[in-house]
Amino acid sequence: MVVVTLTTDFGLRDPYVAEMKGVILGLARTVHLVDVTHEVPRHDITEGALALEAVAPFFPAGTIHLAVVDPGVGTARRGIAVASGGHVFVGPDNGLFTPFLSGAFQAFELASPEHRMRTVSRTFHGRDVFAPAVAHVARGLALPHLGPAVTDPVRLGWPRARELAGTVAGTVVHVDRFGNLVTSIPADVVEPLPPGALIRVAGRTVPLVGTYADLAPGRAGALVGSRNRLEIAVREGSAAARLGARRGTPVVISRRTAPATKKRLQKV
Amino acid sequence: MVVVTLTTDFGLRDPYVAEMKGVILGLARTVHLVDVTHEVPRHDITEGALALEAVAPFFPAGTIHLAVVDPGVGTARRGIAVASGGHVFVGPDNGLFTPFLSGAFQAFELASPEHRMRTVSRTFHGRDVFAPAVAHVARGLALPHLGPAVTDPVRLGWPRARELAGTVAGTVVHVDRFGNLVTSIPADVVEPLPPGALIRVAGRTVPLVGTYADLAPGRAGALVGSRNRLEIAVREGSAAARLGARRGTPVVISRRTAPATKKRLQKV
Amino acid sequence: MVVVTLTTDFGLRDPYVAEMKGVILGLARTVHLVDVTHEVPRHDITEGALALEAVAPFFPAGTIHLAVVDPGVGTARRGIAVASGGHVFVGPDNGLFTPFLSGAFQAFELASPEHRMRTVSRTFHGRDVFAPAVAHVARGLALPHLGPAVTDPVRLGWPRARELAGTVAGTVVHVDRFGNLVTSIPADVVEPLPPGALIRVAGRTVPLVGTYADLAPGRAGALVGSRNRLEIAVREGSAAARLGARRGTPVVISRRTAPATKKRLQKV
Repeated sequence: MVVVTLTTDFGLRDPYVAEMKGVILGLARTVHLVDVTHEVPRHDITEGALALEAVAPFFPAGTIHLAVVDPGVGTARRGIAVASGGHVFVGPDNGLFTPFLSGAFQAFELASPEHRMRTVSRTFHGRDVFAPAVAHVARGLALPHLGPAVTDPVRLGWPRARELAGTVAGTVVHVDRFGNLVTSIPADVVEPLPPGALIRVAGRTVPLVGTYADLAPGRAGALVGSRNRLEIAVREGSAAARLGARRGTPVVISRRTAPATKKRLQKV
Repeated sequence: MVVVTLTTDFGLRDPYVAEMKGVILGLARTVHLVDVTHEVPRHDITEGALALEAVAPFFPAGTIHLAVVDPGVGTARRGIAVASGGHVFVGPDNGLFTPFLSGAFQAFELASPEHRMRTVSRTFHGRDVFAPAVAHVARGLALPHLGPAVTDPVRLGWPRARELAGTVAGTVVHVDRFGNLVTSIPADVVEPLPPGALIRVAGRTVPLVGTYADLAPGRAGALVGSRNRLEIAVREGSAAARLGARRGTPVVISRRTAPATKKRLQKV
Repeated sequence: MVVVTLTTDFGLRDPYVAEMKGVILGLARTVHLVDVTHEVPRHDITEGALALEAVAPFFPAGTIHLAVVDPGVGTARRGIAVASGGHVFVGPDNGLFTPFLSGAFQAFELASPEHRMRTVSRTFHGRDVFAPAVAHVARGLALPHLGPAVTDPVRLGWPRARELAGTVAGTVVHVDRFGNLVTSIPADVVEPLPPGALIRVAGRTVPLVGTYADLAPGRAGALVGSRNRLEIAVREGSAAARLGARRGTPVVISRRTAPATKKRLQKV
């Protein structure tokens, strides 16, 4: 059984996701279909890419990830299949696979007419182009049969952390359902810091802690979250609501700051 | 592995869908369960039927579709299994399967006591009557064993397009999550029209285009959508919100209209 | 194929559920993954336990239930695996499995380092501790290999019905998506009552009926629901909205009451 994941901005109200699954199962019955999320905000390619970046490491080698956040459907944008890190990614070539294009990878355009639906609608390539390609790959088709190699897949500007005058600066990249703020600052930057180091976000400073339980209920803190990134959380509350933060909000790691300077920072 | 799809108005918050899946898996382990949608508006049989009509063509022959939008549970309404077009449909006999009752079909009442739960609740036939029937059919039971033939299954009045004085008139039958308006006008009526033909909806006229990308961002147009029907869309926006349209809103194809008359139509 | 169900408060927007599924499939490919609900209100252990209590009876023997409603993640709270009634339950030891701890059961702490992820995050034991344990059990691991026996698993105070001066009193334990009020009063208390017996809830009395169809549209009544408990429903409406009831609202079965006393009850 090959594992196939699905990530889209289609929502769960309409039958679009099921139509793709029907196409896949019609061509390849012994697959394991796993929904990642269908609640990517409409046309938000970066959120889709972040969801893929979060889940891919937890899926076994050989997993095929079908992803459709596709504002350009019906235009000349290419469809691609990308092999990277032992996984395959299939969807529009619009940056959705950016996290998997920084190391070694191979990409191919979905050009072959025999690996798509006989009739391709102009508004739903997820079903008519990407799903059939996924099914053929699940059945063992080598990617080069799908079409010509792509050496210049579209890459998004990717939110990273940068060092600046002895501090590390990043941004909030995702707000989860609990209101936790996932940042662009990776764990390896955070881990050398002493507990109690201060993190500045949305005009406040919050302390670095080990886990939620180190915070009193209702208090904000920063910790290394399950995505191996710095996250800002409020214990049993929403950091997004409390701090008025959202995607793009800057986050800065200060060196440990004395109580006297703390107050000043909070006013920034 | 037999594919079984599930379509209900149960939502995803309560465990009702899982209860049905548990019953099916207890009787037939090697099935592939695929959710179509559980967000059919409560008791909205027509929306459920439209979802089934949209997905069924994309599922392989032999697929069994379990559908439960069942305001009449606990009354004398029958349960039925319908064989049509190489698929089987199981659920209440209340019109939910109307799209599959226009050509050749066979239908049987779910009357046999040995193919339902030993105790049948009076409020949840999805779990106690329909799910066991699905499992038995997935295991190979021939439909006539379920009960007597039904020759008069309930049919809904089905939204269609009609020709009228040289124009074609239909209605909006579904508003999708993106705010696209799916109409009752089929593709074969639309395809002979010249590009730029005008479509009247909610007091406005919008041009016929080939795909979303033929529209400037924010502009409304009409196109043949992925359901093979005329759809009204706003590029990167919601046609429902922009045009104030909803299910039932009339849609009329005008003959190509000169700019001079365009204005007048917009005031209608 | 072993059936594995998943019940969490993670929602469907974030990729957390898929991360757990990826971990399970990486270790045990031939499982059947079934979502119960991921819309348990955040940190609401009782609602999670009620969902499990509702679904477990409908799943086949040998089913493994992964449940994560885990406000104490990162604290010293234990993880446990519970064998009860032919099923296995895996998750935090915080009361989530209360309905399965009243009869004979065996419980074990998830202590064994070789049955969890090599790196365990401090914020997501669902993925790093519970999912691997589920996969190992699905592959046949005997529960005692997971860690030491637990004889004192955490139990919630569980909503029950009590007899009081000739009446039976309980509470609303769950409001479903349709606004039906599921109560703590079991079917066997209700079944001996005569039809038309009166139920007092939120200052009103409603009659006991057999099924929704015994009510006129828009009218409230009480009936034995699909969970084998007394439920209060409004036909084609929401009992929660109509009666202003919610979880915790008291529900009392009166002995059959004459019309004269009925009015007085309504004023209570």
